[in-house]
Amino acid sequence: MPEDRTEQPHIVTCTAPVNIAVIKYWGKRNEDLILPINSSLSVTLHQDQLKTTTTVATSRSFQEDRIWLNGKEEDITHPRLQSCLREIRRLARKRRNDGDSGVDSASLSHKVHICSVNNFPTAAGLASSAAGFACLVYSLARVFGVEGELSGIARQGSGSACRSMYGGFVQWIMGNKEDGKDSLAQQVEPETHWPELRILVLVASAERKPVGSTSGMQTSVKTSCLLKHRAESVVPGRMVEMTEAIRKKDFAAFAELTMKDSNQFHASCLDTYPPIFYLNHVSQQIISLVHRYNKHYGETRVAYTFDAGPNAVIFTLQQHVPEFVHVVQHFFPPETNGADFIKGLPVNCASLSEELKQGIGLEPMPKGINYIISTKAGPGPRVVEDPTQHLLLSDGFPKKTM
Amino acid sequence: MPEDRTEQPHIVTCTAPVNIAVIKYWGKRNEDLILPINSSLSVTLHQDQLKTTTTVATSRSFQEDRIWLNGKEEDITHPRLQSCLREIRRLARKRRNDGDSGVDSASLSHKVHICSVNNFPTAAGLASSAAGFACLVYSLARVFGVEGELSGIARQGSGSACRSMYGGFVQWIMGNKEDGKDSLAQQVEPETHWPELRILVLVASAERKPVGSTSGMQTSVKTSCLLKHRAESVVPGRMVEMTEAIRKKDFAAFAELTMKDSNQFHASCLDTYPPIFYLNHVSQQIISLVHRYNKHYGETRVAYTFDAGPNAVIFTLQQHVPEFVHVVQHFFPPETNGADFIKGLPVNCASLSEELKQGIGLEPMPKGINYIISTKAGPGPRVVEDPTQHLLLSDGFPKKTM
Repeated sequence: MPEDRTEQPHIVTCTAPVNIAVIKYWGKRNEDLILPINSSLSVTLHQDQLKTTTTVATSRSFQEDRIWLNGKEEDITHPRLQSCLREIRRLARKRRNDGDSGVDSASLSHKVHICSVNNFPTAAGLASSAAGFACLVYSLARVFGVEGELSGIARQGSGSACRSMYGGFVQWIMGNKEDGKDSLAQQVEPETHWPELRILVLVASAERKPVGSTSGMQTSVKTSCLLKHRAESVVPGRMVEMTEAIRKKDFAAFAELTMKDSNQFHASCLDTYPPIFYLNHVSQQIISLVHRYNKHYGETRVAYTFDAGPNAVIFTLQQHVPEFVHVVQHFFPPETNGADFIKGLPVNCASLSEELKQGIGLEPMPKGINYIISTKAGPGPRVVEDPTQHLLLSDGFPKKTM
Repeated sequence: MPEDRTEQPHIVTCTAPVNIAVIKYWGKRNEDLILPINSSLSVTLHQDQLKTTTTVATSRSFQEDRIWLNGKEEDITHPRLQSCLREIRRLARKRRNDGDSGVDSASLSHKVHICSVNNFPTAAGLASSAAGFACLVYSLARVFGVEGELSGIARQGSGSACRSMYGGFVQWIMGNKEDGKDSLAQQVEPETHWPELRILVLVASAERKPVGSTSGMQTSVKTSCLLKHRAESVVPGRMVEMTEAIRKKDFAAFAELTMKDSNQFHASCLDTYPPIFYLNHVSQQIISLVHRYNKHYGETRVAYTFDAGPNAVIFTLQQHVPEFVHVVQHFFPPETNGADFIKGLPVNCASLSEELKQGIGLEPMPKGINYIISTKAGPGPRVVEDPTQHLLLSDGFPKKTM
């Protein structure tokens, strides 16, 4: 391959999705390699509603590796960023040495400029690091011409990022090797497998910033004997059950296991010393609402799951979305009752019967939920072919508009 | 013994204490006999602040067994009341047949009238059933002239009542016999063992009545795999550690284990399906406050524990009471800042340094706590010798003033 001698940068733009775990990841057995104490399983959310976009450029004229996140230059020396850059370059060199003609030899000696944005506000409290690191690794791989298994590298940026490397239903197999080579993500079913499944992100108002997940899980691993038991004796069986529920599209089984696993994760946080609370009074109210709603109908129509923050992610089937959204709107009356409350996939109108309202019988909690994002399962990372979408200009610097 | 032929009732009045578990009881292996899935350990609170008073009368003129609780006649056929009545009478007959001269043969064939009151409002949300059943069993035993081990009978009224049969520090050994004969309470240390220990009951405001403990623990036993693990593999070691901490009066060890065990109990409730929440946002704030207070001083000066409700019970040493009470008053500003806020043992004045307030750094939560009861460890059930204290008149009916 002739070496590229132009100053013009080589630019690639990709997008990657957010994922939400239904069997939770909490706790590392190796902090540096980011190896988990249990396997986990997630649903990849659709990028039409939630995604990270990342542009990577390489050029012989770049003096150093640089990164801009959501319009602000950040420190590229962050150890987890460095892990991803190092591992992708190592992989590219290895492929080149193995004679892979796709690898861009020229780029390999060049510095990179990286620019990344989310299409959702950080204030939404959605874990953006999974989509962010998945997008970074996917984009870097593209710019260097590397293909194949990349989830092991994304994992070293942020554990759950490995699951954002695939669409649909994805498991992160914990593996057992010391070097982490077998701790990888794998697609269980593609996003087309269960088209009726719908996802609602209920963005809850929070008074204060909760404990970060990195330090939170460290404290849990050190102090919670229930977490240890969960990881060793509970999760292995649940991974099998969850995979089975998804394969069979058994909503009740999927929903119940999702709720139980969310609760057990938060139970492990409470068994941590000092205890960690991610569920606030709004989250508790959402949990009550879901159980009362299901009880009213005598079947499990709706499930909740909560990560390391007060936002709820709701799973339900398409046919129940309009009614349940209006139930949420009734019991959490928003500040402005306008269309702004529901973002994403359109939600049809529905009326609520007095019987249902009374059956649920909760006291409405005004302004508890800021807004709802209506979405569904979606595909994994994608290359953006349209060059006008690049976040870096041909000089390798971010567009002024950012 | 000549049979008593008078119509005059035989009247006995006793008092019994509330107890607060530091190693929690949650879950029965036998619902009828009230046999627990793990041993537990509690501190008996002083009756000067919190007690039940019960008068029992027997007379050949009584037509049937009757009971008045806090001024209102209640249904005597309640199965747990019946268990206690049956077991005490069975024990009395057995003792009489074995030739025990203390047993009142005449009373044995008589009906009983029972009248019971608490010196604390039910609205305080303190579990009154332990003190209530302990007092009932103790009084019945006295009226029938039965002595000796009675905790096994109190246990059949309300599990934790067995621990209110002793003063100071009390363990309830779970036992392993099918008939429950070895599931009994035992004093670990008397109330005089650790005179510096102080107890503060923080009565929190609650919006709604939580799930009752009887049905709550049934659901937990059925659905929580973390509770099973806790009972089998965690609590046995903690019983040994707690007994040791109490024997050595090692406050830091006692306090940390108390907090960890409270958290683990609530974690098991959260792992229950559907989950049970007893900690509300006030409880969460108290937990934060205690950890921040301890962290500020770099030592564990204060501990919290929560039962099946939002009230906190605080353990600390005498020398820290004034400051900590004022910390609570600062971060939970009461409606009326008067002396009404602190009930029970007098609390000296203390000033709070700006450094301490800033070190804790929480947003004050007005009216989160209704009042504080200041108390300490106290003795077990007592006979009230003064006949003017009887709650039943010589006709065997409650005093009108009730």
